[in-house]
Amino acid sequence: MSMSAEIISVGTELLLGEIVNSNAQMLSQGLSEMGINVFHHTVVGDNRQRLSEVIELAKRRSDIIITTGGLGPTYDDLTKEVVAECFGRKLTLHEDSHIRVMDFFRKVGTVMTANNKSQALIPQGAEVLVNDWGTAPGVAFKSEGKYVIMLPGPPAECSMMFLFRVIPYLERITKRVILSKSIRVFGMGESAVDNILGKMMLSMENPTIAPYAKTGEVQIRVTASSKTKEEAVKLIEPAVDEILKKLGDVVYGVDVDSLEEVVVNLLKQRKVTVAVAESCTGGLLAKRITDIPGVSDVFIGGICAYNNSIKNKLLGVDKEVLESEGAVSKAVAVAMAQGIRKSMGADIGISTTGIAGPTGSHNPSKPIGTVFIAMSTEDYDTVECFSLWGNRQRIRNTASSHALNIMRKYLSNKVE
Amino acid sequence: MSMSAEIISVGTELLLGEIVNSNAQMLSQGLSEMGINVFHHTVVGDNRQRLSEVIELAKRRSDIIITTGGLGPTYDDLTKEVVAECFGRKLTLHEDSHIRVMDFFRKVGTVMTANNKSQALIPQGAEVLVNDWGTAPGVAFKSEGKYVIMLPGPPAECSMMFLFRVIPYLERITKRVILSKSIRVFGMGESAVDNILGKMMLSMENPTIAPYAKTGEVQIRVTASSKTKEEAVKLIEPAVDEILKKLGDVVYGVDVDSLEEVVVNLLKQRKVTVAVAESCTGGLLAKRITDIPGVSDVFIGGICAYNNSIKNKLLGVDKEVLESEGAVSKAVAVAMAQGIRKSMGADIGISTTGIAGPTGSHNPSKPIGTVFIAMSTEDYDTVECFSLWGNRQRIRNTASSHALNIMRKYLSNKVE
Repeated sequence: MSMSAEIISVGTELLLGEIVNSNAQMLSQGLSEMGINVFHHTVVGDNRQRLSEVIELAKRRSDIIITTGGLGPTYDDLTKEVVAECFGRKLTLHEDSHIRVMDFFRKVGTVMTANNKSQALIPQGAEVLVNDWGTAPGVAFKSEGKYVIMLPGPPAECSMMFLFRVIPYLERITKRVILSKSIRVFGMGESAVDNILGKMMLSMENPTIAPYAKTGEVQIRVTASSKTKEEAVKLIEPAVDEILKKLGDVVYGVDVDSLEEVVVNLLKQRKVTVAVAESCTGGLLAKRITDIPGVSDVFIGGICAYNNSIKNKLLGVDKEVLESEGAVSKAVAVAMAQGIRKSMGADIGISTTGIAGPTGSHNPSKPIGTVFIAMSTEDYDTVECFSLWGNRQRIRNTASSHALNIMRKYLSNKVE
Repeated sequence: MSMSAEIISVGTELLLGEIVNSNAQMLSQGLSEMGINVFHHTVVGDNRQRLSEVIELAKRRSDIIITTGGLGPTYDDLTKEVVAECFGRKLTLHEDSHIRVMDFFRKVGTVMTANNKSQALIPQGAEVLVNDWGTAPGVAFKSEGKYVIMLPGPPAECSMMFLFRVIPYLERITKRVILSKSIRVFGMGESAVDNILGKMMLSMENPTIAPYAKTGEVQIRVTASSKTKEEAVKLIEPAVDEILKKLGDVVYGVDVDSLEEVVVNLLKQRKVTVAVAESCTGGLLAKRITDIPGVSDVFIGGICAYNNSIKNKLLGVDKEVLESEGAVSKAVAVAMAQGIRKSMGADIGISTTGIAGPTGSHNPSKPIGTVFIAMSTEDYDTVECFSLWGNRQRIRNTASSHALNIMRKYLSNKVE
C-alpha cells in the first residue's frame, strides 16, 4: 500500500510572505514521482505551541512527516526540540556533527559561538543525514509507526539533502530503488504531448510518465521504481526510447538543463561558431547563449539592432528593403542573418525581427507576436515566420527559444 | 486586538509539486502589511473529506480564513460546496454572476457547458467578490464569528482579487484604510539598510516599515493604516520622506517596477539616447533595457563583443591596449563605451567587461567577479571597478544593474 506524506515548513518568513515555499514544491514533486502521496502541506511560524500542535496533527494523519527549516543555531530554531518532544525523545549531542560544525567555522575563519553547538543536537536514536551543503545536519527516525525526516530550510541545501540523503533513506525503508529521467520538449504544447502520450501515460504504472508545462516548454518525467538499480534501468529505458520515438525531433534532450546548454554543446562538438543579430529579442538571445559558461570558443558576439539605422549601418541591410518590406519581414531577417555572419566572421548567423508588443503593430497583416527568424550558413539561408502569443516577455522568450531550436536542428543534422 | 488569518490553498497540482504556492506568499505579504497575523498556511488536495477537516480546524484556530483555488466548473472544484457545508449554509445561484459567466463564454465565442453554471453558485447570504480577471467569482461572508473569503486559484486572478476586492473588504470589516508604498533600493545591502533604518523600524508602529531582500536589491514597504485615506496619507508621507533622506541616492524609485523602467523613463524625459557594449553581461543589459515597451525612441542598440576580435573590429578598441591591459580592464571598458557611442551615434555609450566565472580568471589581481563598467557621454567618460560575488548568473545580473544605476545617477543629475 502506498504511504502518505505531509510536508511541514517552519519559518515566520514564509508566513510574512518574504519567501515562497519552494521547498514544499520540490519535495512534493520528488515524493509524487516515488509514488508517495502527499496529502498536506503545512506552514507554521517559529512558535513552540503552534509547531507542536501541527506535529501532533501530522502524527495522526500521515505516515511520513518531512519538516523543513528551523534547524539553525538561533533561539527561534525550534524544530528538532519540538519534534523530539512530540515523540518523547531527548536531544543528545552528536559528536561527528559537532566536529563538522566546528570544522566549518574553522574553514570560514570565524569564531564559533556557543549556540552553534545546538546544531549538533539530535533526537536520541535518530539517524543523522549529513549536510555537505551547509552547517545544520538533517535527521531521520522512525517512531510510533511514523517516519520523521527533518531538513534544513535554505532551498539549495534542502534540495541537495532530498536528492542525496532522503531518496536513499526512503529507498531503504520502502526497499525500492527510484530512477528518474527528464525528457525536454520544445515546439509542442502540453495538450499535444498529452494527445500523443496519453494512452501510454494511462496504461503504464511503472515507470510512471508525468508531463509538466514550463514557460513555453514541456518536461516529461519518467520514473521507475524497482528492487535493484539494474531492474529500474531495464524498466525505464524502453519507455524513454518509446517516448523519444513518438515525439520525434521536438525532444531537445534527456536530463539536460536547457535548450541553450544543448545548443552550446552542439556548437562545441561540431566546432561551429555563431553570431546573432537581434531586433525584437533585444539581447535576450545573446544573453541566453552566454548564460552557459565557457561559451567564448563558439560564440563570437552579437548586434542588437534596435534602431533601423543600425540594421543598415552595422548589418548592411539595404535601406530600400527596410523601406519597402518593413523591418519586420522575411527579407530583413535574412539580410540581418547574412550581415552578422559576415561582419563577425562566424559560421552561422542568426537573426530575430518581430513585434513583441504591447504597441508597435501598424499593419493588420503583422499583428503583435509576428516574428521572423533567419539563419545564414555557408551552405544556405533559411527563414521562418512565427505567430507567437502572450505578453511582451513571453513573446520575446519564445522567439529566442525558436532561434535556439533552429540552430539545434541544423547542428543535429549537420554531418561532422 | 489584532486578528489572525489562515490561508488554505486547495489543489492537487500543489501537492504534486506541479506549481509553487505563490498565492500564499502574495496573500501573506499583503495581510502582514495590513497588520493581520498569518499563523498558518495549509495546502490540501481536491478531496472532500480532507478539505472539510482542514476547514473545521481553521474554524477553531483562526479569525479570518482565506481559501484559494477550487472555484472552477469541474467536478473536482469543491471549495464552495465544502466551505458552505462546514458553515451550515446552502449554495444558491447568484443571478448577476450567472449572467457574467454566460457573457464571458459569448465573448470568447465558445458554447458554455452546463457545469459552468456551478461557478455562479454561492453560499446563501454571502457577498460576491466580482472577478474582472477571470470567470469564477470570489465570495466573502461572516459566520460563527469568523470571516471567510474564497478566491480563485490562478495567481494573476488571485492577486488582482486581493488588491481590488479583499483589501477593501478587510478595510470595511476592520474600519481601517490601508495605504502602502514601496521604496526601491539598489547598491546597499539589507543589513546596511537595517543599520540605517533599524531604530525607525522598531519605534514606528503606524506606518510599519518592512525591508525585503530581492535578488541584489532591497525593497522597503511602508504601510499605514488609518480611518480615512487622508489620515493614512498624512501618516505615510513623512515616513517615506524621512527614509528617502536617510538612504540618499541608493533609492532609485518609489512605487516603480524596476531599475530599467526608471532609466528608460529618465532617458525619455531628458531626450537622451543610449547604446550598450557588452562583454561579460553578454546581451543581458540590452535585454533588460528592451524589456520596457516603447524603448525604441531612446535605445539605439548594442554590440555584444564576446570575442576580443569584435572589441577591436566593431568597437575600435586598440589591439595593443587589449594585449597590454587585458580585455578585463579600465582602459578597455572606456574604449568600448566610447566606441559604441560613436559607432551607434548615441548620446550615452555604456560598457561592461568582467569575469562572470566559473572559469576565466587567470590573474590573481582580477578574480571571478571583477567587472569594469564605463560610461561615455559628450561631456566626459567615467569608469568604475566592481568586485561582485555569487555564481555566474548573479554576477551578470548585478553587473547589469550597476550599469543601469550608473546611467540613472547620471541622468538624475543632468540639467535639462
